[in-house]
Amino acid sequence: MVIAVDAAGGDFYPKNPVQGAVEAIADKEELMILLVGPEALITRELQNYTYDSERIRILDAPEIIDMDESPSTAVRNKRHSSIVVGLNAHKQGDCAAFVSAGNTGALLAASIFILGKLDGVNRPTIATYFPTIKGMRLLLDAGANLELKPETYLQFAQMGTIYSRDILGIKDPTVGLINVGEEPEKGTELLKEVYQNLKELPNFKGNVEGRDIFEASTDIFLCDGLVGNILLKFGESIPAAIQKILGRTMKEMKVDTETKDMVIKILHRSLHSFNYEHVGGVPFLGVNGVSMVGHGGSTPAAVKNMILNAAHCVEAGVNDKIVASLHN
Amino acid sequence: MVIAVDAAGGDFYPKNPVQGAVEAIADKEELMILLVGPEALITRELQNYTYDSERIRILDAPEIIDMDESPSTAVRNKRHSSIVVGLNAHKQGDCAAFVSAGNTGALLAASIFILGKLDGVNRPTIATYFPTIKGMRLLLDAGANLELKPETYLQFAQMGTIYSRDILGIKDPTVGLINVGEEPEKGTELLKEVYQNLKELPNFKGNVEGRDIFEASTDIFLCDGLVGNILLKFGESIPAAIQKILGRTMKEMKVDTETKDMVIKILHRSLHSFNYEHVGGVPFLGVNGVSMVGHGGSTPAAVKNMILNAAHCVEAGVNDKIVASLHN
Repeated sequence: MVIAVDAAGGDFYPKNPVQGAVEAIADKEELMILLVGPEALITRELQNYTYDSERIRILDAPEIIDMDESPSTAVRNKRHSSIVVGLNAHKQGDCAAFVSAGNTGALLAASIFILGKLDGVNRPTIATYFPTIKGMRLLLDAGANLELKPETYLQFAQMGTIYSRDILGIKDPTVGLINVGEEPEKGTELLKEVYQNLKELPNFKGNVEGRDIFEASTDIFLCDGLVGNILLKFGESIPAAIQKILGRTMKEMKVDTETKDMVIKILHRSLHSFNYEHVGGVPFLGVNGVSMVGHGGSTPAAVKNMILNAAHCVEAGVNDKIVASLHN
Repeated sequence: MVIAVDAAGGDFYPKNPVQGAVEAIADKEELMILLVGPEALITRELQNYTYDSERIRILDAPEIIDMDESPSTAVRNKRHSSIVVGLNAHKQGDCAAFVSAGNTGALLAASIFILGKLDGVNRPTIATYFPTIKGMRLLLDAGANLELKPETYLQFAQMGTIYSRDILGIKDPTVGLINVGEEPEKGTELLKEVYQNLKELPNFKGNVEGRDIFEASTDIFLCDGLVGNILLKFGESIPAAIQKILGRTMKEMKVDTETKDMVIKILHRSLHSFNYEHVGGVPFLGVNGVSMVGHGGSTPAAVKNMILNAAHCVEAGVNDKIVASLHN
């Protein structure tokens, strides 16, 4: 199996994608990597590692899409960027998946434009991980689609169920609709209609409230991209805020250095699972291919995990299962 | 000045409202209290306290509105409930304000129905406190109005500015619009229009993202009631979740009892300001009167603070300032 890796994406390219690729082939036998990006840059970076040269190839893509570049313009104008070249290689069947820690908006736009949508899918989405006290859970949509039609929520629930079960390994994943109250008649007219649509799913557990998310009262949380994006970024800000608040309290209480170090240690260990850099990456669900995006700050280990995750998606036939689920 | 207090609202009536009232008159000289609720119940509770009996009177209201009762039905059918009787007394000028730790929905509905709206106000709202690392900040709307018109955001910004400045004591409070990105062209069509409307306010600082809320990048956060309610309940769930996570980590790390107690102490002190029970209460902004609601679990101290807060609103002439601001 060949997985293409964006060697010119994220905050630490080419080092982290290249090192992640080298670590991935050491981890998984039959895996081959296609590193996509400026050839000279990749060649030079590869010289720092010892690896089986038959299992890593380079696909030249001289143009760079910056992290904060306008997605649509970037994809339209930079036909020789790693994102466009890599996804075209995937489309042509030269690789089974494409992974990147680059510009999320550009990746989403290019994935939809180049790979197209799966049969029956209204809108592709990014299935984002949301940290909870039970570990990472899925939140859809987290910003790809700010407003959703009622029937799109249903598709997101179906796609999220398959991904949670087959890739995240959650047995019998449950679905909750984020709303202002538990009762079916709560929320906007749209959400009331969505609730009725979702009732046909056996794993729909009804409305969930803001307080249920951190507790992971369900495994999959559905909302529109506006709510999801705000919640996700709010959630991401919690670890740093908690550290700041505890640090301030310890200063006020004049706790000794030993205690302070211990508290910081406990805190770091507690918040470890909230760190998005440790998560491999998240898939664009609903596109006709396997395309994953990682945090811009992805470490080599994060890139490696993203590659293995993508391979897992291919092996598990996630897309075939999605198409079958939507046609049932 | 007479403040009416709902003696049959919240999870701990009549004790907490009555005790809070007794503490409030001890705290503030010229204050008189009208305790509204079942007379026999209040009379019996008052026997537990020593107080100036000329400064606390009882207004009989035999019916009880439960915390989870449907607001509109409760207000329509229970004409002799403390909420309806107390707000009617306020309307007739028998008291300068009404405060309650009771059913929020019923209070909002009754406040709008009985007191009416201030001249020029589209929609009254609940100005909720949101905990940040800089202390409590205002979030509007937090669930009273799930969907808002563009011009309503502008009014909320104006009302929130006056309340933040004159009651919370924040000098030159700033306003942020919660959105998915900082740029004016981010978000839904509605939010783009709202951004353009808000530009006329000198204290509008533009869009803020989910990650800016905990950091209190502005003093007032604007959003529709759907987003606000989800965020508020999510925020409320953080302290318990953090305690759970740290507790689990300490168990795994087998830390000694002494360290554990110290960590819990630091945590409690850090999260103290996040506890909504310590906050006095929040006002319904835009109604033609002073009506405040507190957490159902309000302690006597919380009820006392809510009473003093209401007196402060009356003295500061918040409503006159709102009307003047809307007509500028």
